[in-house]
Amino acid sequence: MSNRFEIRVAGSGGQGVILAAVILGEAAALHSDTLNSVQSQAYGPEARGGAAKSEVIYDTAPIDYPKATSPNFQLILTQKACDSYIGDTAKGATVILDDIFVTEIPQIDGQIYHLPIVRTAREKIGREIVVNMVALGTAARFLEEKKLLAPSAIKQTILARVPKGTEELNAKAFDEGYSIMDEALKKQPLK
Amino acid sequence: MSNRFEIRVAGSGGQGVILAAVILGEAAALHSDTLNSVQSQAYGPEARGGAAKSEVIYDTAPIDYPKATSPNFQLILTQKACDSYIGDTAKGATVILDDIFVTEIPQIDGQIYHLPIVRTAREKIGREIVVNMVALGTAARFLEEKKLLAPSAIKQTILARVPKGTEELNAKAFDEGYSIMDEALKKQPLK
Repeated sequence: MSNRFEIRVAGSGGQGVILAAVILGEAAALHSDTLNSVQSQAYGPEARGGAAKSEVIYDTAPIDYPKATSPNFQLILTQKACDSYIGDTAKGATVILDDIFVTEIPQIDGQIYHLPIVRTAREKIGREIVVNMVALGTAARFLEEKKLLAPSAIKQTILARVPKGTEELNAKAFDEGYSIMDEALKKQPLK
Repeated sequence: MSNRFEIRVAGSGGQGVILAAVILGEAAALHSDTLNSVQSQAYGPEARGGAAKSEVIYDTAPIDYPKATSPNFQLILTQKACDSYIGDTAKGATVILDDIFVTEIPQIDGQIYHLPIVRTAREKIGREIVVNMVALGTAARFLEEKKLLAPSAIKQTILARVPKGTEELNAKAFDEGYSIMDEALKKQPLK
């Protein structure tokens, strides 16, 4: 049986969207007994323009087609990325948008969470470079709620991937992201 | 017209094969006027085992299928990865193998270069962590010879991607790799 679940992380170059997606792909592979995963990025002429995206597919069955065609979960960090990539969101999907970089909230047939991802990286951690780790924290809480992947799988993969000496910083950013989404789910539970 | 060219980078976890492939994907997207690229990694149960692979497709036409089915160029850094991934090499392909970690040279209908990639990272640079940058240097010389991509495109992408403060180390590793392949091509030119 196929249980395909498509994830897209999108933002601008420099926000670490590829690393975030690589971590989501590896976390499933290394820490789940049931999920296969494929992670990919496609570059065309638009790659010069600024909206970056990176995708991950999870499935209990082998994955034939590795691109996302209608993402079940999107994590979008800029308005440009939102404008470019919101259109193919699956019905009933969940979309997390950054609350300072995405100001025009799209209409979708699904659930939107407008969360302080960049602000948390800047203000609580003091290092905007960890914005992708905050974003991964929010994703981890969501994927836990969907019973797809344990948060510890993602956190362990982060700790194995980031440069030595930065583990604590990245773990803190991840934990903050997790808490933000946890609060959001208390106010607006998943349908 | 399609001019599909499939690249696979393979080794063990920790050798940076994903970053190497991400850089090859981005370099084509950002610095070539003609190439599209797609970069992907697939994880299945075997991801727990140790042979890591990461793939890049270049094409002048849009890329429908993002996985490598018969790589035209492989860069292989361990025996296990060689055993796992040599089988589907395209006819006439070029394969670069690390000369200490790959000791059993496979038979292929193509060209094999057995090069001191890990040794160069260890001995000339003094940091085995840059093995993927040495590997990218060898790839850059090959892709230049094939008239697919300028070495400067890859080097610029590396410099934009690596952590601040490590640019010089990574550039040196890249340059060493480039020289190794340049020497190899003098002895054994591409057919």
